[in-house]
Amino acid sequence: MAKQYTVAILGATGAVGTRMIEQLEQSTIPVGEIHLLASSRSAGKTLYFKGEPVTIEEAVPDSFNGVDLVLASAGGSVSGRLLPEAVKRGAVCVDNTSFFRMNDNVPLVVPEVNPDALANHNGIIANPNCSTIQMVVALEPVRQKFGLNQIIVSTYQAAGGAGQSAINELYREAQEKIDGKEMQAEILPVKGDKKHYPLAFNLLPQIDVFEDADYTHEEWKMIHETKKIMYGDKNSTDIKVTATCVRVPVPIGHGETVYFTTEKQPTPDEIRQSLTGAAGVVVQDDPAHQIYPQPITAEGSRDTFVGRIRADVENPGAYHMWVVSDNLLKGAAWNTVQIAEELVARDLVHVPAGSAELFN
Amino acid sequence: MAKQYTVAILGATGAVGTRMIEQLEQSTIPVGEIHLLASSRSAGKTLYFKGEPVTIEEAVPDSFNGVDLVLASAGGSVSGRLLPEAVKRGAVCVDNTSFFRMNDNVPLVVPEVNPDALANHNGIIANPNCSTIQMVVALEPVRQKFGLNQIIVSTYQAAGGAGQSAINELYREAQEKIDGKEMQAEILPVKGDKKHYPLAFNLLPQIDVFEDADYTHEEWKMIHETKKIMYGDKNSTDIKVTATCVRVPVPIGHGETVYFTTEKQPTPDEIRQSLTGAAGVVVQDDPAHQIYPQPITAEGSRDTFVGRIRADVENPGAYHMWVVSDNLLKGAAWNTVQIAEELVARDLVHVPAGSAELFN
Repeated sequence: MAKQYTVAILGATGAVGTRMIEQLEQSTIPVGEIHLLASSRSAGKTLYFKGEPVTIEEAVPDSFNGVDLVLASAGGSVSGRLLPEAVKRGAVCVDNTSFFRMNDNVPLVVPEVNPDALANHNGIIANPNCSTIQMVVALEPVRQKFGLNQIIVSTYQAAGGAGQSAINELYREAQEKIDGKEMQAEILPVKGDKKHYPLAFNLLPQIDVFEDADYTHEEWKMIHETKKIMYGDKNSTDIKVTATCVRVPVPIGHGETVYFTTEKQPTPDEIRQSLTGAAGVVVQDDPAHQIYPQPITAEGSRDTFVGRIRADVENPGAYHMWVVSDNLLKGAAWNTVQIAEELVARDLVHVPAGSAELFN
Repeated sequence: MAKQYTVAILGATGAVGTRMIEQLEQSTIPVGEIHLLASSRSAGKTLYFKGEPVTIEEAVPDSFNGVDLVLASAGGSVSGRLLPEAVKRGAVCVDNTSFFRMNDNVPLVVPEVNPDALANHNGIIANPNCSTIQMVVALEPVRQKFGLNQIIVSTYQAAGGAGQSAINELYREAQEKIDGKEMQAEILPVKGDKKHYPLAFNLLPQIDVFEDADYTHEEWKMIHETKKIMYGDKNSTDIKVTATCVRVPVPIGHGETVYFTTEKQPTPDEIRQSLTGAAGVVVQDDPAHQIYPQPITAEGSRDTFVGRIRADVENPGAYHMWVVSDNLLKGAAWNTVQIAEELVARDLVHVPAGSAELFN
């Protein structure tokens, strides 16, 4: 009989965690035992895995004894504190938080783009930011066939990227506005920042905190993560990337206008062909029949949807595309489980000797 | 006593028309008589101008007898049919529809950018598209000081650009979604197109119909109108412009991520300074205090709000800005009334001989 894996989900009760459970249920990974870990607040409650009740345990270092695989989405500080403990105990961790993404000892992986980066893992593999994942999935077939020089992206990001509480806030604010009441913002744009603004019927050009050069952390993530995933180095000069990230009043499903320049000068049809049938990509691009990606049709799918593929008519070798994906699935839970599937398929669910020391 | 003007508002009952009345009430134009014109459906109803009741008249050619100034926003086909009749009767028309915008005999005017184009008008002056106006207001001070080479814009456009009925549809759909019902789309993305999709909690990458090169009519408008307003020729090669236009679930207030390259290489602070105090522009750009433009704070203002001004850190001479304006005011009603104010101030409320023949 094939090996069965003991899997722990860290942050099992969140918007991403609950979807990790669903994605793991539907995955090819032979799960022997499952541990659902969360904060002490949720410990003792019951969730279900493949129809069987599972009691949530408080996440502590010894939670990882005997665990083969950890799927983590409980926030950066929790991952920073607990994943080194898991590695110490021999568990391979796939982390959905940003905590380890820029760590040189941690591969940052989108299976459609750089699965081979898994080979040299040291016990922790990072899952990229949601807005980065769908963009690199859509651009990788183009890069392989025509080469990429530059990316200029504007995002239209859903509330769900900030968790279930942000989705709840969006709907509550929408009802307040419809009822003629004042909208009460408590979470967005950034839970830990000083001011909060309503998202319902509004646009917030701030995702995460402001950092160097007046870029937000989210914008820097798109720049550095894209370079690390596609070119192996977060500071790679093989590609230029720049971004503006905007939160829009959509619960689930990020949109992105992606402007890119290529080394060769394919026709838009050749770009469309390079994407048709590509792993994880669904082309929805038929203007004559008003077919293009939308969040409400992308929600619930593991795929990345691409449409509005066009040339910049005044700049040879420059193009537009419109990319939509379920930010909680391909942008988070599914990509994490997909990485775990790759680890299992490649027999990489082992912590190499010396790994724990790297994260001390 | 100064001359009093007889003004007619064509399409007085619409989302833009009602705002034209308000903007005209607050304007510097000495209005003697006012005529409110609409379709036969609205004729006989009452609206108010400066507190006085005005009975709506059906718009017919003879409605313009004795009229000095027409402000029109009743749809392109109505303008195409009736404005030549108004010109024939000696009325100068400011048209908010797209019907005459690309006509070489018609100046396309944003008063902060190209007011001198009014000098040679032939009885009809076109008001540009909402998404174009706010972008050129925000870019003109940059162009004057540093020169512009290229513009790549992604829009986040409000439902109100498609009229009051689209705003109503957005709110109705939002309530349907909150109530767990299926959203019923009847208007957007384009009233006259084949399919309709919900906008509430969704994104629609189609504004107006699809045309050449898989660009929408709205995208072509942004390209050709920007060139005509800023460089005097809709096909000018002095600037490269490309656009992706997306409808977002916001009732009023368009957002735009504007990426642009300049001839000189100013610092972001120098760009900010060029915009501070510029006509029609309010800079809201203080990341440390989370100050940036938002639709809900721009609604009801005549100004164009600019923030998130940043350099593309890998491309010298390339920059981002985030621009928001009330698409029904600066994008439509106010810019139209503002053009009329300029015509009055420059004593240009006269139809030159031979004008009527140009529109036969």
